[in-house]
Amino acid sequence: MNSSGLDALIEALRCLPGIGPKSAQRLAYHLMQHDRAGAARLGESIQHALSAVRHCQRCNTFTELDICERCASPRRDPELLCVVETPVDMNMMEQTLAYQGLYYVLMGKISPLDGIGPRQLDLERLLTRATDGVVREVILATNYTNEGEATAHYITAMLKPRGIGVTRIARGIPVGGELEYVDSGTLAQALRERKSLGA
Amino acid sequence: MNSSGLDALIEALRCLPGIGPKSAQRLAYHLMQHDRAGAARLGESIQHALSAVRHCQRCNTFTELDICERCASPRRDPELLCVVETPVDMNMMEQTLAYQGLYYVLMGKISPLDGIGPRQLDLERLLTRATDGVVREVILATNYTNEGEATAHYITAMLKPRGIGVTRIARGIPVGGELEYVDSGTLAQALRERKSLGA
Ligand SMILES: [Zn+2]
Ligand SMILES: [Zn+2]
Repeated sequence: MNSSGLDALIEALRCLPGIGPKSAQRLAYHLMQHDRAGAARLGESIQHALSAVRHCQRCNTFTELDICERCASPRRDPELLCVVETPVDMNMMEQTLAYQGLYYVLMGKISPLDGIGPRQLDLERLLTRATDGVVREVILATNYTNEGEATAHYITAMLKPRGIGVTRIARGIPVGGELEYVDSGTLAQALRERKSLGA
Repeated sequence: MNSSGLDALIEALRCLPGIGPKSAQRLAYHLMQHDRAGAARLGESIQHALSAVRHCQRCNTFTELDICERCASPRRDPELLCVVETPVDMNMMEQTLAYQGLYYVLMGKISPLDGIGPRQLDLERLLTRATDGVVREVILATNYTNEGEATAHYITAMLKPRGIGVTRIARGIPVGGELEYVDSGTLAQALRERKSLGA
């Protein structure tokens, strides 16, 4: 577009997953021509989020506090700890209205092909969290994909020897499917039918 | 995601065309967890573009100068003026390597359903530009959609009585199609086969 500032914007938009060179051009054109107010809001919110948003010290989700509101709530059952891959998955669990316990958000999953193992996921933090003496049951709600399953297996092997009860949400979720695309009813059913792992 | 800064970012991302609530969540999660450097670059480039990018006084495209580099170039033929709807369309024309004249970018098209008529497009500016005494031929390269055709007809009716030669790129472009999705060869052909309009 013969404009270095615009070229930089087009290039920067390509950091968004799924946005190729042509989509980036169209997005930049749309923002500059049709929605400068939206663009200003987007620029500000990115910079605010970068400076303010960090990880909850207890559940690892995004928050602007040391301990997020959910972890600090006296209305949640502290004996239940549900492990999910992402904050979006946690939201999906909340929308079922079928769960009143706490969470731990992995912010990823074991994925050898991407070089992500237990160390990169910092599973030691989950071990510390789960062995605080209050947690009685860890509910594994990772996806039923290969990576999600491998992650669940690893966490089970890590926690069972410590005497922590470990359950897995039921395979009501389609094999190969991801929590994010499942309806709340199916997910609620899978939660109710969770089963104990190991011997 | 239980974080006002993150919620604001998710909401702001929805100003991008084609991004719904779920995509916005995923994009925000991706930026915060996996690409904070990309996010910082995006935030900065948006704010820089908003402050630096404006419209070329001659061709109306985006630029950081009063007169863009292309308009100021002595190597372009000033007797030819190609009218396109968007900067992306101008880039498409340039990629054909079949055109050495100048441009006028409408930054839109006549679209009554969206309340965009000749006045909203500021076609008076095009009239002034095309009647500078140097321009000999105006080549209409608006899309072959209903709106692009209506825009071409309106501009033809505006310029012909002033004695300006008006041509239309050939309908090598599929009816209903948009320049942005046509390969360079087809577009070059359409340019070569442009035909005179009016009696
Ligand atoms: Zn928390
Ligand atoms: Zn120009």
